[in-house]
Amino acid sequence: MPAEIVRLRKPYLLFVGRAATEADAKTALGLRDWARESCLAQLRLEGARVNLGLPEMTPESAAQSGARSLVIGVAPVGGRIPSDWHEVLLRAAAAGLDVVSGMHHPLAAIPNLAATAARAGAALVDVRLSKQEYPVATGRKRSGKRLLTVGTDCALGKKYTALALTRAMQAKGMSVDFRATGQTGILISGSGIAIDAVVGDFAAGAAEMLSPDAAPSHWDVIEGQGSLFHPAYAGVSLALLHGSQPDVMVLCHDPNRHRLNAFPHYAAPKLNDAISRYCEAARLTNPNARVAAISLNTSMLRPEARSDILDKTAVELHLPCFDPLVSRLDGILDAMDFEG
Amino acid sequence: MPAEIVRLRKPYLLFVGRAATEADAKTALGLRDWARESCLAQLRLEGARVNLGLPEMTPESAAQSGARSLVIGVAPVGGRIPSDWHEVLLRAAAAGLDVVSGMHHPLAAIPNLAATAARAGAALVDVRLSKQEYPVATGRKRSGKRLLTVGTDCALGKKYTALALTRAMQAKGMSVDFRATGQTGILISGSGIAIDAVVGDFAAGAAEMLSPDAAPSHWDVIEGQGSLFHPAYAGVSLALLHGSQPDVMVLCHDPNRHRLNAFPHYAAPKLNDAISRYCEAARLTNPNARVAAISLNTSMLRPEARSDILDKTAVELHLPCFDPLVSRLDGILDAMDFEG
Repeated sequence: MPAEIVRLRKPYLLFVGRAATEADAKTALGLRDWARESCLAQLRLEGARVNLGLPEMTPESAAQSGARSLVIGVAPVGGRIPSDWHEVLLRAAAAGLDVVSGMHHPLAAIPNLAATAARAGAALVDVRLSKQEYPVATGRKRSGKRLLTVGTDCALGKKYTALALTRAMQAKGMSVDFRATGQTGILISGSGIAIDAVVGDFAAGAAEMLSPDAAPSHWDVIEGQGSLFHPAYAGVSLALLHGSQPDVMVLCHDPNRHRLNAFPHYAAPKLNDAISRYCEAARLTNPNARVAAISLNTSMLRPEARSDILDKTAVELHLPCFDPLVSRLDGILDAMDFEG
Repeated sequence: MPAEIVRLRKPYLLFVGRAATEADAKTALGLRDWARESCLAQLRLEGARVNLGLPEMTPESAAQSGARSLVIGVAPVGGRIPSDWHEVLLRAAAAGLDVVSGMHHPLAAIPNLAATAARAGAALVDVRLSKQEYPVATGRKRSGKRLLTVGTDCALGKKYTALALTRAMQAKGMSVDFRATGQTGILISGSGIAIDAVVGDFAAGAAEMLSPDAAPSHWDVIEGQGSLFHPAYAGVSLALLHGSQPDVMVLCHDPNRHRLNAFPHYAAPKLNDAISRYCEAARLTNPNARVAAISLNTSMLRPEARSDILDKTAVELHLPCFDPLVSRLDGILDAMDFEG
């Protein structure tokens, strides 16, 4: 298959299955919060305890109302699609909805689903299972500007930081695109490349393709992945960093996380060390790369402690410091000095 | 397919096709030079200009003489298997020889080859096309000792340095295994993982699996890939570095190469910078990692210039410095201070 970026058809019917907790339905909730305009309706099976607050529709009524894709927004136990989801997925495909999954097991393994979709002109989209052949990176400097969120660990806010900055930059009238590199980001934006699913030799090349040449004042805001300080995922992070050629990095951190998530024998790096290591690595492909701000995930702190740590970190590092879910970002953007 | 390391059956019948030049038959020549005891015979088609100096055998006579695999040792133009090779590959499979390829296109695409091999109890082995699912790395420190060759660029001697050090360590009576990470290395040693063909998220995990727990004084000598300073491949190099957890790194360099191979807009790093960056990165998973020697590829220099640059580099960096193809390695091994 020739190389191209995954593109999804919107709006979505969000499938919540029998989700018992908000954690189970994390993907669906992220879509509702960050791509509300793309979410037409929800579909819940009997026993579901999560309610997205969207209209309830069947596959058929959603298709009649203009939905283009059913998105599986719930993570099944064990990562496999349960057999009691098959009927609704087959009905969605028969109604002409694309079926979109971020799971490790292919949709085509569901009996008759591929044939049903083909007859109805619908597609099966496995966001994480790339069959694409990406090119080897060239290292050629591209036109336009790029911001990449980087982190001291996985799962601490790189995606939400990138989404919040994109919104704030749009609100200021800047020309900006969010570039998704993980499954939830791709579902939110409707396109992207699941960079951690690409074969190593081509990962930097895929990252180059994701943020192509653009007008000199255009910004791509690229969702970071993993961390240079992670014993399992640093290679993916470095390939994404080199291929993205960021002018500006925003370092994301959770001040409560002293050990890496699920790798407690690894300490989180100090912010100062992380800044210098990210700059050092990024300057291979963009000699002007700099860390321009710190994004702190303060969700675990009491409200009065939040502004304290933001202020303290900003003073210590001489950098603007914000929490994307609580701070006003217009002043932060000014302080990041995008012309610099 | 559950995760496991590729294992090949030896000895080999080396297939040279109609190779016109030694460059075309690089893989076959590497096998003859580095795995002579595994190479039973050669098979050349009419018009071949390369002669490995091995007995000539047909697939049938090689199988009768004890060969277990036919290895494609020639790179076809365009990377695809030419149709005039099909007959001899089918005969090999019918004779019970495994057919081993390092090409990007699968052997099973040759009409009837898979069925013929299955009937004869033979396997088709695409060394570079991993269908394995590797685990995510754990970062847990493993027992035993590890040496990894690292480089200032691609294609400057990391594989040959690892092979030469393995031989010299064996000659000293050390307990040592060569661990292959690329297709030629896998063919030479008969096992390994083509690390650049692994999906990014699992590359460090594959590297962990490649050099498992071992006796405290056992050494794995791991073939390095790419370079931390390469705009396309640094991610693979970093994943291999983190998963390998080397106690000792040997930095490989070509003193004549001032710009990266095929990436002339990128300068080769200075040796001192490369040493500090490799140590910094490696210490995430092994805090005692160190660069213990420099391997220089002096093949482009006149003989009298070779020892000059080896001596000069050793003095400048205070490290033992050798060319694996010309230096005596027993003294080098002593100077590397493996107990240190």
